[in-house]
Amino acid sequence: MDLNADVGESFGAYRLGDDAELMKHITSVNVACGMHAGDPLIMRCTVALAKEAGVALGAHPGYPDLQGFGRRHLALTPEEVEAFVIYQVGALQAFCRAARVPLWHVKAHGALYNLAVRDAAVADAIARAVARVDPGLILVGMAGSELLRAGERAGLRVASEAFADRGYNPDGTLVARGRPGAVIHDPGMVVERVIRMVKEGTVTCNDGSEVAMRADTICFHGDTPGAADLVRLVRKGLEQAGMAVAPLHRLLP
Amino acid sequence: MDLNADVGESFGAYRLGDDAELMKHITSVNVACGMHAGDPLIMRCTVALAKEAGVALGAHPGYPDLQGFGRRHLALTPEEVEAFVIYQVGALQAFCRAARVPLWHVKAHGALYNLAVRDAAVADAIARAVARVDPGLILVGMAGSELLRAGERAGLRVASEAFADRGYNPDGTLVARGRPGAVIHDPGMVVERVIRMVKEGTVTCNDGSEVAMRADTICFHGDTPGAADLVRLVRKGLEQAGMAVAPLHRLLP
Amino acid sequence: MDLNADVGESFGAYRLGDDAELMKHITSVNVACGMHAGDPLIMRCTVALAKEAGVALGAHPGYPDLQGFGRRHLALTPEEVEAFVIYQVGALQAFCRAARVPLWHVKAHGALYNLAVRDAAVADAIARAVARVDPGLILVGMAGSELLRAGERAGLRVASEAFADRGYNPDGTLVARGRPGAVIHDPGMVVERVIRMVKEGTVTCNDGSEVAMRADTICFHGDTPGAADLVRLVRKGLEQAGMAVAPLHRLLP
Amino acid sequence: MDLNADVGESFGAYRLGDDAELMKHITSVNVACGMHAGDPLIMRCTVALAKEAGVALGAHPGYPDLQGFGRRHLALTPEEVEAFVIYQVGALQAFCRAARVPLWHVKAHGALYNLAVRDAAVADAIARAVARVDPGLILVGMAGSELLRAGERAGLRVASEAFADRGYNPDGTLVARGRPGAVIHDPGMVVERVIRMVKEGTVTCNDGSEVAMRADTICFHGDTPGAADLVRLVRKGLEQAGMAVAPLHRLLP
Repeated sequence: MDLNADVGESFGAYRLGDDAELMKHITSVNVACGMHAGDPLIMRCTVALAKEAGVALGAHPGYPDLQGFGRRHLALTPEEVEAFVIYQVGALQAFCRAARVPLWHVKAHGALYNLAVRDAAVADAIARAVARVDPGLILVGMAGSELLRAGERAGLRVASEAFADRGYNPDGTLVARGRPGAVIHDPGMVVERVIRMVKEGTVTCNDGSEVAMRADTICFHGDTPGAADLVRLVRKGLEQAGMAVAPLHRLLP
Repeated sequence: MDLNADVGESFGAYRLGDDAELMKHITSVNVACGMHAGDPLIMRCTVALAKEAGVALGAHPGYPDLQGFGRRHLALTPEEVEAFVIYQVGALQAFCRAARVPLWHVKAHGALYNLAVRDAAVADAIARAVARVDPGLILVGMAGSELLRAGERAGLRVASEAFADRGYNPDGTLVARGRPGAVIHDPGMVVERVIRMVKEGTVTCNDGSEVAMRADTICFHGDTPGAADLVRLVRKGLEQAGMAVAPLHRLLP
Repeated sequence: MDLNADVGESFGAYRLGDDAELMKHITSVNVACGMHAGDPLIMRCTVALAKEAGVALGAHPGYPDLQGFGRRHLALTPEEVEAFVIYQVGALQAFCRAARVPLWHVKAHGALYNLAVRDAAVADAIARAVARVDPGLILVGMAGSELLRAGERAGLRVASEAFADRGYNPDGTLVARGRPGAVIHDPGMVVERVIRMVKEGTVTCNDGSEVAMRADTICFHGDTPGAADLVRLVRKGLEQAGMAVAPLHRLLP
Repeated sequence: MDLNADVGESFGAYRLGDDAELMKHITSVNVACGMHAGDPLIMRCTVALAKEAGVALGAHPGYPDLQGFGRRHLALTPEEVEAFVIYQVGALQAFCRAARVPLWHVKAHGALYNLAVRDAAVADAIARAVARVDPGLILVGMAGSELLRAGERAGLRVASEAFADRGYNPDGTLVARGRPGAVIHDPGMVVERVIRMVKEGTVTCNDGSEVAMRADTICFHGDTPGAADLVRLVRKGLEQAGMAVAPLHRLLP
């Protein structure tokens, strides 16, 4: 199992998240690329931090909307999405090359991530962009999403992402924030859910039913209070259950 | 001799220059990278145009100042310059990889280009950035500039750039725009000057004196009226004088 | 009848439209406010041009998306729309005050204009913003749109806008660009349509049916080739038909 | 004496400073206007906060450089400075009008503030912009600066600003950050210095000499740890010494 988090989301004088603390416990990071968050200086520092922490680096391209942090839908055409992803992945890859450390994966951010769950044309645009820049990159997408199918169509290795501390609906979508059961606060239950995802490939939904849930990587949010503690507990729980915790490129075939 | 021009300077709905026309006559292009001009869609189209025209692609990083077109000095530290150059070169390189065409050189834009003529710390920052991203890239700088020395210090191949249609002062700097003799309008004289740069390694200054002028590449400005005609004439003049007109990577040792 | 056009859409080194030429024939201008187009220098020049031409000044707020020219939908909340409109109207109003010329109206731009046709919450947000900044401002919206109703709810004077050179569907919406009949190219027919809008309050749809069409102001697009000629012809046609051509604040009660 | 602080410096998802806490103790705020910090939503909230706290609102225009927080010099022409200041003051004034609260003053931010200390052309551009938008606005500038003289030339009321917790050189400039004595950490000494500025119109320099220092307003930095406590102490000290603490428009003639 891979444990990932979004990092490098500071911008200029603005600081967001405690990346160094998170990197002690996770195995992969998704680095903002200057469009919804991050800037060249932050990207450079974040790559250096990740190299030192020994975590696997990934690009985290998003909508060009700094003020909205990439969380608002922006009606880009698939061609625009493709070009914006190529741009951002390329920019981060240059910092990786400059630091002599590989770029391993790409994960879309925010509203673009959400759109790629269900919009096949946008999903194909993202996958095409990644495959064009470097066919060796792993494409990370939400479990069951169009993006994972698009990645396979584009010949990429794909990784299925699950959310350890979020409730799921019976159709595999996340319970919307604000609804009851959207966030699971009990760390013990979070650990238990992750272990079941790995062992049985299922997750218990809010209505008590079981749904299939393939998880190659688990996402943690650095801006959640107590995130570092939660990751530590999940990691410990997985290791005690005898499961390997390692970055995606060591886990995927 | 290489003939180069700045291209890809459109942005969103805004169009600037006739890149396709210029590319018929020049051998290298410097592509804006989204900070002072250009955007991911424009970059992608420009790389495709250049590939089709068979001209050598270069990155043209500039200050992050779209409204000022990178022509206003912005007091970045050398560390900031380095990070902004890595970012921009990486972004363009990704479009080149996606189009299966090599990136050959890097040339700084506007106020950053001018600063790197005389500021050794900034010149070193640019050279370091380029060498870190890809030590095989050629660094283009103004003849006699700090940037060329910085490129050599960084172990890069460097190319010395001259301006065919601009007057020179005896110290090798350009006559400032607006001053008499700043721009040479007679195409015949422009051709003659280029040929002398190649054959004798000198240029005649505004006061009539001769100054050493090494020219590996000649810069043309697409926004000058009649630019395409001028390039065509210079190219014809060079070829009639028996000189090779080819991109830098074929000319430099 | 008022004749309006979008102006001040240049940005930095980028030029768009021939505002001075258009201003010879129209009676009102909508000035971009720096979010989707325009910048402080352009706004200042445009206000000066409009003052000299004696046309009525209006603000043209849009989405904060320069690269997309405000033409792509961006999922702002109504609160965000309200704040962005206050900001942009205020910025333009300052240039008007600095030039000692009144600001008369506000018209939303691009994708925001289109959304305000049918989305009552967004329409209310725009109307509230305008009323809060200056209740004396006239709110311009598409004929039959939610925005006009929102303006009335907010206690504003509203102006109904029609498109002289665009085809209409029987439900009063515009025939989408690219569809047959979307654009009417024959200037004579354009003039005839405008006159019928004024005299009879109707327009002939693409299927031959008549639909009610209140037109206080007619919109012309400066980027259409021949726009200035078309405006001139329409103006002449209206005047020959004995109709007053004047800015909105002279026409509305 | 007026006590001021820079506020509204958050941006999008990024938070900076504890404005609400500071506003309990100061009498004036300088609100970022979206170019170096702030955005329309933040501006709106900040104006509402200030209205509720009963502090005097001022605009804080800066360079258009969000990533550099307006702290890096950008070589704008005086015409550009003038237009950028008109734009920003107008945008904030609209939020003030929308909230039914007056805008009282303007103070330049960061590198623009510093440049206006010594560059008369830039100082005149700022003063002209303010006077053009609203001649009733108070212009705040560093004690002894060109900006104050420019404000007087433009017919504006001006307010001389001093720094309570910064060391001064004998020529009235601030001791550069990083140098010994640049920042005064002892709150008692800060209070004493402010009282002397008011009573005797002088401040003790780092070399022990006295220099004239007119202070109409004292600047506090919200990002300094303990800023709110320091303001509280200074305010208490001034009040105990029998000095009026009130916003500028109540103090200036």
